[in-house]
Amino acid sequence: MTKFVSLDTFDVRFPTSRSLAGSDAMNPTPDYALAYAVVRTNADDGREGHGFAFTIGRGNDVELAAIRALEPFIVGFDVEETLADLGGFARGLVWDSPLRWLGPEKGVMHMAIGAVVNALWDLRAKRAGKPLWRLLVDLSPEELTGLIDFRYLSDALTADEAVELLAKGANGREERTIELETKGLPAYTTSAGWLGYDDDQLISLSSEAALSGFSLVKLKVGANQEDDLRRCGLVRSAIGAGVGLALDANQVWDVNVSVDRINALREFELSWVEEPTNPDDILGLARIKRGIAPIRVASGEHVPNRVVFKQLLQHRSIDIMQIDACRVAGVNENVANLLLAAKFGVPVYPHAGGVGLCELVQHLAMFDYISLGGLSSRKNFDPLIEWIDHLHDHFVEPATIVSGRYRVPELPGASTQMRAESIDEFSFPVGKAWIGELADPEAGTGDLNRVGGRHPGGLAW
Amino acid sequence: MTKFVSLDTFDVRFPTSRSLAGSDAMNPTPDYALAYAVVRTNADDGREGHGFAFTIGRGNDVELAAIRALEPFIVGFDVEETLADLGGFARGLVWDSPLRWLGPEKGVMHMAIGAVVNALWDLRAKRAGKPLWRLLVDLSPEELTGLIDFRYLSDALTADEAVELLAKGANGREERTIELETKGLPAYTTSAGWLGYDDDQLISLSSEAALSGFSLVKLKVGANQEDDLRRCGLVRSAIGAGVGLALDANQVWDVNVSVDRINALREFELSWVEEPTNPDDILGLARIKRGIAPIRVASGEHVPNRVVFKQLLQHRSIDIMQIDACRVAGVNENVANLLLAAKFGVPVYPHAGGVGLCELVQHLAMFDYISLGGLSSRKNFDPLIEWIDHLHDHFVEPATIVSGRYRVPELPGASTQMRAESIDEFSFPVGKAWIGELADPEAGTGDLNRVGGRHPGGLAW
Repeated sequence: MTKFVSLDTFDVRFPTSRSLAGSDAMNPTPDYALAYAVVRTNADDGREGHGFAFTIGRGNDVELAAIRALEPFIVGFDVEETLADLGGFARGLVWDSPLRWLGPEKGVMHMAIGAVVNALWDLRAKRAGKPLWRLLVDLSPEELTGLIDFRYLSDALTADEAVELLAKGANGREERTIELETKGLPAYTTSAGWLGYDDDQLISLSSEAALSGFSLVKLKVGANQEDDLRRCGLVRSAIGAGVGLALDANQVWDVNVSVDRINALREFELSWVEEPTNPDDILGLARIKRGIAPIRVASGEHVPNRVVFKQLLQHRSIDIMQIDACRVAGVNENVANLLLAAKFGVPVYPHAGGVGLCELVQHLAMFDYISLGGLSSRKNFDPLIEWIDHLHDHFVEPATIVSGRYRVPELPGASTQMRAESIDEFSFPVGKAWIGELADPEAGTGDLNRVGGRHPGGLAW
Repeated sequence: MTKFVSLDTFDVRFPTSRSLAGSDAMNPTPDYALAYAVVRTNADDGREGHGFAFTIGRGNDVELAAIRALEPFIVGFDVEETLADLGGFARGLVWDSPLRWLGPEKGVMHMAIGAVVNALWDLRAKRAGKPLWRLLVDLSPEELTGLIDFRYLSDALTADEAVELLAKGANGREERTIELETKGLPAYTTSAGWLGYDDDQLISLSSEAALSGFSLVKLKVGANQEDDLRRCGLVRSAIGAGVGLALDANQVWDVNVSVDRINALREFELSWVEEPTNPDDILGLARIKRGIAPIRVASGEHVPNRVVFKQLLQHRSIDIMQIDACRVAGVNENVANLLLAAKFGVPVYPHAGGVGLCELVQHLAMFDYISLGGLSSRKNFDPLIEWIDHLHDHFVEPATIVSGRYRVPELPGASTQMRAESIDEFSFPVGKAWIGELADPEAGTGDLNRVGGRHPGGLAW
């Protein structure tokens, strides 16, 4: 019998707050980080399952503690049996009563479950000799439906409806697969518009993005209203009228403030506004949507679970649904989320970036396009996946963009495996990358961000 | 200068799964546990701040890791300054960007913030020489409003409105204070109706409860429909027509199932049904409420934050709001929750029980009654706080019931301080109470519940 023999964890952090790549109105100095998990078996094939939760620095160790709490659910168990029923495995973790109490189905523990479930998908795809997207599109509608936890969904989506959506969604999948393999999946870029970038950086990076084939550029807003106006104008001029412009406020506004702030930027022909307010605010997002139409509302990267996604769709609160590969309980819950979006006819533009999020979520976007793109409600749907251009080289098979489109990943697995040298170098706090970074906790916000502590100005807001 | 010198943590667990006290349809074998925090200063007064998050066993260590991540925000800082501005302190933790990423404002990290914020309230009340409820009712409307994080609330409640509610709510507070001090706060009991209790236990405990002065008894339901019918009948007979009967399904049903299952129990004259479905399901709870009226819907013990409470009230999803002392970011966020309930005219029946929850939440219930009981929208409101009769003796000042009413706590502090001997005895896994309990991880669900691992029957649902 092949058994799981270990679940190892690594605290991997990148000092991104140095360059302010990744800065936004809510998160001024993130250090992109992974609570990284590796599952090993006693098979003599060298194959491991790699998964992670994404955080922005301090607290990554808390996420790792949650992942380690899942070891007794894995180590010692049969590999074949477990991988053959990842639906049962994922439901077993989500529904474990003491662990569920820590959410339920949200936050640190739910993301930890996602990391482990995704690691097992990586291993299953490696053993099948397929990239994850292909493994998923090759599953039958019944097998896919078996992955899902339908608890709490029956007032919006039943297993029978899901099978039907998948059967109809497959219509034309051969053409879409060929299209994907030859042209790739269209992307938009967030790399030009970080809040910490100055005007010159903004102009040169936006025009570069437009020239290199991206059909849309996303800009961080929400700190200062005058800055937002000026920066939107600069980017709109730099990219020209033919390229889309989206905004991302990263949850900084209240409901009524959102409507005013967004409407004040109407002249820049906005495609959508992302996370204007709190991601839990189903009613508030619906009011914002009505207040800013025809500008669209997007949300989802911080939506904790399928129950909140269900309501965002039932209440027509969002025009664009943004799944995140690591916020929910892994591939399984995202298959549920994609089916919910398909049922309600809402397009999914996955959240990516961070570190490793592009690598993993591209598989889900490709599955969505191939397996659910045939639905008549989605005939003109425009798959669009976020792209952020840093930290890819740390992965064994980095996500790759050509002419503004994601290339299809080809190696077996979920593209989640980081290079061993990168894990070593960026291990916190002992890796080479961190030597000298933690010298003086009083030196500035960057260091405080890393080690914790109140900021020098006190706790003023 | 008086400084904070330490934040110590303790993993305290009680083997309650042995007796099935605490068992319900969602949580069949809980081991009540506290992720316990003690804040110490260099003052020579022996005063410490005690706080905790409540969990049900496995994963308590994850919660402790989250509490320890907050040490750099406390140790070394000025005690007077910090305690004088607990609003600023709590906002500082909730809005710390990397920690916020782990929620946002939900789950393990949010509960950890609650534990630490509550520990500081305990210390502040001890230093003021008052029980917490009296400290709170003695604050001015402006001081109370300063405690609140109004971000995301402005479409439902502004600071000005809060001040006004508190000003009007104080009307008649002297009478209510005297009433409270002489008669206590009315309680209902959950101790008679655990799901794991057999029919004989159910009958004798329910009739005892009615005889001892409780005006309402709550029964766990949701596993088997025939059992629910039979057990409701037994309890209704045992308590007689004059005592209220409420049900608690602990989130086990889907939306439509809830309506059917509850309506099938109408004949037993139900006061309310608690947590019929997922606590995040704002839309679903509203549909259940319409489907079972005039039976009322109660929810809140697993509501992660004020943003979800705001929506439950805006959407009229619940008839009864159940705050929990430890699920949200401490006293501060619960003051916001109480004001939201007051604004929307919904009564608050706090969730208690577990271990330490009665001790802490009674202070909030008494504050609510005294400081917001004068609002005309609440003239006939009926404060009712949950009571569960075990594990109180482990506290320095145990919550106390006389004739179905909570007595007013009198010692300075938040009643959160556990006896040092109890912390020792129930420390997991080394305390005396655990010797012999962890001998054989294959022995039964109790042990699996404690150490983790898939249940012997596999992961079937």
